[in-house]
Amino acid sequence: MDSVKLVNVIRGDHVESIHRGHIAVMDAEGKLLYFAGDPSIKVYARSSMKPLQAIPVVETGAADRYHFDDADLSLCCASHSGEKMHTDRVMSILKRAGMTEGALQCGTHIPHWQDTYKEIIRSGRELTPLYNNCSGKHSGMLVTAKHMNESLHDYYELQHPVQQRILQSVCDMADFPMDDIEIGIDGCGVPVHGLPLERLALSYAKMANPDKLPVARQQAVSRIKKAMVAAPEMVGGTNRFCTDFMIAGKGRFFGKAGAEAVYCMGDNETGMGIAIKIEDGNARAMYPVAVEVLKQLDLLSGQQIQELSEHYRPKLKNARQEEVGKLVPSFTLRT
Amino acid sequence: MDSVKLVNVIRGDHVESIHRGHIAVMDAEGKLLYFAGDPSIKVYARSSMKPLQAIPVVETGAADRYHFDDADLSLCCASHSGEKMHTDRVMSILKRAGMTEGALQCGTHIPHWQDTYKEIIRSGRELTPLYNNCSGKHSGMLVTAKHMNESLHDYYELQHPVQQRILQSVCDMADFPMDDIEIGIDGCGVPVHGLPLERLALSYAKMANPDKLPVARQQAVSRIKKAMVAAPEMVGGTNRFCTDFMIAGKGRFFGKAGAEAVYCMGDNETGMGIAIKIEDGNARAMYPVAVEVLKQLDLLSGQQIQELSEHYRPKLKNARQEEVGKLVPSFTLRT
Repeated sequence: MDSVKLVNVIRGDHVESIHRGHIAVMDAEGKLLYFAGDPSIKVYARSSMKPLQAIPVVETGAADRYHFDDADLSLCCASHSGEKMHTDRVMSILKRAGMTEGALQCGTHIPHWQDTYKEIIRSGRELTPLYNNCSGKHSGMLVTAKHMNESLHDYYELQHPVQQRILQSVCDMADFPMDDIEIGIDGCGVPVHGLPLERLALSYAKMANPDKLPVARQQAVSRIKKAMVAAPEMVGGTNRFCTDFMIAGKGRFFGKAGAEAVYCMGDNETGMGIAIKIEDGNARAMYPVAVEVLKQLDLLSGQQIQELSEHYRPKLKNARQEEVGKLVPSFTLRT
Repeated sequence: MDSVKLVNVIRGDHVESIHRGHIAVMDAEGKLLYFAGDPSIKVYARSSMKPLQAIPVVETGAADRYHFDDADLSLCCASHSGEKMHTDRVMSILKRAGMTEGALQCGTHIPHWQDTYKEIIRSGRELTPLYNNCSGKHSGMLVTAKHMNESLHDYYELQHPVQQRILQSVCDMADFPMDDIEIGIDGCGVPVHGLPLERLALSYAKMANPDKLPVARQQAVSRIKKAMVAAPEMVGGTNRFCTDFMIAGKGRFFGKAGAEAVYCMGDNETGMGIAIKIEDGNARAMYPVAVEVLKQLDLLSGQQIQELSEHYRPKLKNARQEEVGKLVPSFTLRT
């Protein structure tokens, strides 16, 4: 099946651009409940898998050994903005495990939070991996390796036990054979997992409704979900969708964005898992679609939709800060 | 007709994202020579119209009165990176016409050229409209208004003679009725023109082969084309496609990008005009498509394709600067 139109980008009265894509809504039993486009399309999960990548941080005992609180574990699931609250906490996690910033192998990029970037420039410092949006996840990988007495310099390689544990967790949660997973390299250098969109949705459904999972996995998943909704500011940051979504969700929903416009969400009340892929990889279309899906499934109150309105119906502004257009979701989920 | 796949974004061995769109190739007689997708789709031309927006700068006599050289006129057609060569020249144009930076009404954004942004931050200054990628075009609009003794504070409004002359030039060159043009507001606050993709291609074909145009228009168009290819560094900047394309073209080709992924090109040898719209508005797909179109039309030498290889087959790199994927054009033009 081909992709379907998901979002119209409107300037004045005219559709200027269109974002297409795919949506899958699953329950924890593996039943496809709703979809749009091709729910079986294989996509790289990218950072939408971070909550699953955090499972070994808990299950190995590393989180307990290094006294992880909710904010620490939430940061392991983050694509953070590089605000001070994020970078301070990454430093704290590493320090507790006897490591420094130099252990991070995630590479450098300009942080999302402009104030951080400006501060780095003003002070004449260089960008470091600490400011990488994945430094929380990498600190989680590092403390796991440290706890397990594994090598630290190559923790990002596919064959390293850190990555093998993660791969196994993803396969378990997605009920998908390891040999059929596409492996690529993510923006931060670690393996990235390619699997059908409906299996991403399934993995989130099993997080939302973990009753059938082994007890240790139930506990790990519940602890990670609790951490994300207790410290949502760690998962993204100021004005970021993941953060605002979990604040508005008041503990009911958890969600995580991935690069190239993948979004995964779980609903603790209905046990549904939802996965979205914008075909062209543009993140701007992802959040309107995420809110529209929840709205069509009647899972959001009017108040919650209102709280998320800037993500749901983003305005296009010009450089004079005049409103010149908007993004409008334009799809209907099928059963 | 629906859009067609134009570019695959590949990570590892897997297609991660897809960019669709539309292409029209016209001659100056208005014959559609080649196409992909829907050549009649109405698109906002955005900054791809800047060479046409520069026509009144020449035709009113403003360019002569204020001693415009090629670089000045080329900058009027620019979406520049905000490098020093660009901002110095905008200041020079304004000064020659007795104006200052304060006359620019294009709003502010972070300039493409990071060194400029860093320098602004280090020196504690604020961003100003001078650094806006459209400040060259706006300086052209301003000097035209000044030369014609028109009001300066509202030159960006649709009803101002500056914008009406531009609108008339676009209609003339595109052979398209003024009443049928969609008007929106561009990123820099001026009117933006929505018309069929094939009419954008036609306007570039008539620039490429202006023989049938009135003599004054022939002269204006020829002067603008000559300016763009003589000073291509003004149209974009260091490492920018428009600039590198016109350098590689050695005077044969001229081209200009527009926001939301519109690209227009003219070929002075064959007289063809080419217009491209990436449906989802993502600029990253636009340049591989532009080079691929010229390649399929057999208009580029192997040497030229080589010189443009970083734009033609962009590599995806991660934050560790490792190559993890690539963009690959994936379409065939139809006749």
